[in-house]
Amino acid sequence: MKLWSQFFIPTLKESPADAEIASHKLLIRAGLVRKLSAGLYTYMPLGQRVMRKLTEICREEMDRAGAIELWMPHLHPAEFWENGPRWAASREIMFRADSAGAAARPSREPELVLGPTHEEVITPLVKNEISSYRDLPKNFYQIATKFRNEIRPRYGLMRTREFVMMDAYSFDADEAGAARSYEAMKRGYEAFFRRIGLLSIAVEADTGVMGGSFSHEFMAPAEVGDDDIIYCEASGYAANREKATSALVPADLSDAPPSGEIEKFATPGVATIAALAAAPYSVPAEAQFKTLVYIGDGQPFVVILRGCDELEEAKLGALGFTLVRPATPEEIEPIMGAKPGSLGAVRGTIKNPAALTGIFADHAIRLIGNGTTGANEDAHHLRHVNVARDLAITRFGDFRRVHAGEPCPLSGQPLQSRRGIEVGHIFVLGTKYSERFGAVYTDAEKQSHPMVMGCYGIGIGRSMQALIEQDHDADGIRWPWAVAPFQVIVTLLDPKDEAATAMAKTLAAAAERAGADVLVDDRDERPGVKFKDADLIGIPLRLTVGGRGLKEGVIELKWRHEAAARKVPVAEAQSVIAGEVQRASEEATSAE
Amino acid sequence: MKLWSQFFIPTLKESPADAEIASHKLLIRAGLVRKLSAGLYTYMPLGQRVMRKLTEICREEMDRAGAIELWMPHLHPAEFWENGPRWAASREIMFRADSAGAAARPSREPELVLGPTHEEVITPLVKNEISSYRDLPKNFYQIATKFRNEIRPRYGLMRTREFVMMDAYSFDADEAGAARSYEAMKRGYEAFFRRIGLLSIAVEADTGVMGGSFSHEFMAPAEVGDDDIIYCEASGYAANREKATSALVPADLSDAPPSGEIEKFATPGVATIAALAAAPYSVPAEAQFKTLVYIGDGQPFVVILRGCDELEEAKLGALGFTLVRPATPEEIEPIMGAKPGSLGAVRGTIKNPAALTGIFADHAIRLIGNGTTGANEDAHHLRHVNVARDLAITRFGDFRRVHAGEPCPLSGQPLQSRRGIEVGHIFVLGTKYSERFGAVYTDAEKQSHPMVMGCYGIGIGRSMQALIEQDHDADGIRWPWAVAPFQVIVTLLDPKDEAATAMAKTLAAAAERAGADVLVDDRDERPGVKFKDADLIGIPLRLTVGGRGLKEGVIELKWRHEAAARKVPVAEAQSVIAGEVQRASEEATSAE
Repeated sequence: MKLWSQFFIPTLKESPADAEIASHKLLIRAGLVRKLSAGLYTYMPLGQRVMRKLTEICREEMDRAGAIELWMPHLHPAEFWENGPRWAASREIMFRADSAGAAARPSREPELVLGPTHEEVITPLVKNEISSYRDLPKNFYQIATKFRNEIRPRYGLMRTREFVMMDAYSFDADEAGAARSYEAMKRGYEAFFRRIGLLSIAVEADTGVMGGSFSHEFMAPAEVGDDDIIYCEASGYAANREKATSALVPADLSDAPPSGEIEKFATPGVATIAALAAAPYSVPAEAQFKTLVYIGDGQPFVVILRGCDELEEAKLGALGFTLVRPATPEEIEPIMGAKPGSLGAVRGTIKNPAALTGIFADHAIRLIGNGTTGANEDAHHLRHVNVARDLAITRFGDFRRVHAGEPCPLSGQPLQSRRGIEVGHIFVLGTKYSERFGAVYTDAEKQSHPMVMGCYGIGIGRSMQALIEQDHDADGIRWPWAVAPFQVIVTLLDPKDEAATAMAKTLAAAAERAGADVLVDDRDERPGVKFKDADLIGIPLRLTVGGRGLKEGVIELKWRHEAAARKVPVAEAQSVIAGEVQRASEEATSAE
Repeated sequence: MKLWSQFFIPTLKESPADAEIASHKLLIRAGLVRKLSAGLYTYMPLGQRVMRKLTEICREEMDRAGAIELWMPHLHPAEFWENGPRWAASREIMFRADSAGAAARPSREPELVLGPTHEEVITPLVKNEISSYRDLPKNFYQIATKFRNEIRPRYGLMRTREFVMMDAYSFDADEAGAARSYEAMKRGYEAFFRRIGLLSIAVEADTGVMGGSFSHEFMAPAEVGDDDIIYCEASGYAANREKATSALVPADLSDAPPSGEIEKFATPGVATIAALAAAPYSVPAEAQFKTLVYIGDGQPFVVILRGCDELEEAKLGALGFTLVRPATPEEIEPIMGAKPGSLGAVRGTIKNPAALTGIFADHAIRLIGNGTTGANEDAHHLRHVNVARDLAITRFGDFRRVHAGEPCPLSGQPLQSRRGIEVGHIFVLGTKYSERFGAVYTDAEKQSHPMVMGCYGIGIGRSMQALIEQDHDADGIRWPWAVAPFQVIVTLLDPKDEAATAMAKTLAAAAERAGADVLVDDRDERPGVKFKDADLIGIPLRLTVGGRGLKEGVIELKWRHEAAARKVPVAEAQSVIAGEVQRASEEATSAE
């Protein structure tokens, strides 16, 4: 039992100016966190209580999934990262650590970096400690702080420069074992999110800079989410938009026949798809080719899409590049012969085709039989362009962004979309890291093989905020029972009323004996302030003690998620409260 | 219950080459930690279990002492430190954090630093959140990672570049309140160390760079400790050597009268106390003055001691300087007129006395009536020097290092000394930080006052290692029950023996029901290997199941700290084990 007067819950009436979304505002107003600096938050006592409960449930589920807890340093020697596969792609988002007294020293390569995740540490550790198939599989996890040099931290705990994460790393003898570890963790994740009361959906996701063969994100649906989930209720298909595919282009599509010879025509002042779609040219965007030049690991390449489609940059990862960016106009002109706005990929029109590592085309351009594209000559375009006849495509692929309404790849029904907050991510990594760091084992026949790895992450602070985002109302937070900082609040109307104070403590003790964490609001404040604060900080069950009610021999019991309060005679109060607490605890436990 | 085959305890027969002390060797050999790089350790699964138990007990005791848990960022904006009182003294031991991608950028002042402790963060937080006497006292703690750019990490977890620490910060309205907070925390510390089974002594300590008015260190006595404890059994006096005083110089000492006029004499080749003590000069060190030149916050000053005494540099803190260092010969000569070896402080012999901020003398020089000192002329000394007559002392103080055998300042009995490991530290900080950061409150009369602060630290990882250092034998660790990673190990002699395996699991379950954490050694290894490993990792209670014993209807029960094993008939085994577990648990709980 904690007394509010001796605890520390600095609630606020006003939201901070930089808080844009409800959960961020409530985190601050309910006194759960305070901002130290951009992307750096102190977990205040109330927030720390939620974090500890989330951590404990996460630990239980990871143990149950067969993972073993350890604790790795936050500081990593940079050489581990330099020897790993993602240094070039990661170093911009990483912090290096150096002596603070060394500001005047000449700058040099960092000796230490702060870990955003720990593949580069755990893989060499496992290489040193495990060498036989008899010691596999193993799965190690930790719940610890991670660091990320976010340029634009925002949305409270959603995107920060340090954050608490559960990260796990599995090591298996083969792909089948890795798939079993992955499935066990997927079930562990589902149990974790179910137990903390967070609605989350496992969606197929891009593997991004982590590499690896496939992955799922766990998304908490919320309007303010950073990510789009594309899904189909009929088939159960769900994917992050970066990864989503659709059946827009039939797999058995035959190439459209040409419908005339290529014709060059002047297009003065036309530099966009929209301009060419407008009068006097009136070429529908669906019949235009969009020709983009990108740089992948330093080498230029071309991507072609329909004029009406957008490139989904993450899908370029399938081409095997580590770092991808759009080429600049200065890089484009010497290769293509024209500036952006007049680019195309018709055979023979590219000035220096040998400079390109490839011409990659989205499947959907095969829907175009008679298209229009840039002539690689400023202010000129070509019409009657046919994909099969006129374009030298290195490889077709899925590069376009999918939209709601397109047919589901499984059911053919229209896809839907909603926004979500990424709260977890699981990857099959394959042997990318184990080969790089030499994490091999010998099998029963003394043959050596690289271990097959998986990696796993859950954002603990982000889960806390997602819970608030998913369940709040105009008055404040509504915590699920399992993670509420306190489950019961006893609102003592007048702390100078000795009989009421004694009753409040008796009821608090009864709730505590039944298994609840109890806060007694014993502050010298008006009842209205206390009710507002209790709603704001979202305690599931409120007991009101004192005033006219107590004189009439009743106390008031009110659930945060119900509108009506209930009067309970004092004589029955202890047993009613114990009953309510037990019921709520059992409901929460049944999620295990 | 964990199965060894599915857990991960990589024991080693050999100690690593860089491990000098027993506890460091055992940390590695028992698979508790692994070194990632200098001063950076991974807590392996077994070590992490101990760390979690230590953390949980620490949390319980801090809660009981009235402290409130929160969690502050590891990254701090450097400006908080620049605005604080110890930036100059701390920055060399701090890490700064910068983008790892920015190695090629010109070096500049750090924007972020990694916190070694959190006064610079909590004080501004409290300034923003607390303004009334009604919200005081408050005491906040966290159990989190700290960073320190140790130049020479060593002794395993004793001196590392990152480490887990409990740190707390109390805020009171006045000194009396601060003293109560300090006492409550002191009792909390004593309870923590008692419960984890670590012998520790609270000793008076220097406040060092933290500032503040007084402090205690908690020292775990151990031969390999970095610190000297000076103590007296008769009076209970105990202090870190840096802080210790003795009654060597009687408080009522009257100045010795002069015994002759000052005489200069040539001392060619003499540059040390020892050389002047030797023939042909034969001046006892006790009758020599040792004249040292130091730089305090950029300004030179002189310290004078007896030739036989050593300066205790930490005691110079009492002079009010933040940063103190010995002056170089190049700095000394223009001020004193001579090189080190011929220095003195006799009136009129210092070349440029105006350059000195003071001449500070240790009390003990007052024991010298007729002394010898340098003449501030190379290769010359002065004899018949009298303190009262000849030296212009700015201030006397306690600057000498105290040694065992000197009289206790309380009892007069000979002081003793032993070495210890610092595992905790508590400080009354006063208003040093609150004034600097404007952490003030208004009292009932609307008057504004700075809060009076205390700060507190416990090294959690260091406590783990100190436990090993205090209790181990030639075979390995002997964990106290309360923090043992597992309290019971069931050594299954032959995992292929199905009856024995079933019995092992039955007994493990019985021990678990009685409240123990149980490890079953089900590995396919020889019994000798298993016994050695069980002793090495220090599990308090071992049950041996299988082999001839089981055929004869007995299992073996052996306490790690007892030499003899005991045979228990199978029929009684469950209840005997439950009884032993309960007894050990009750003993551990009685320390609460």
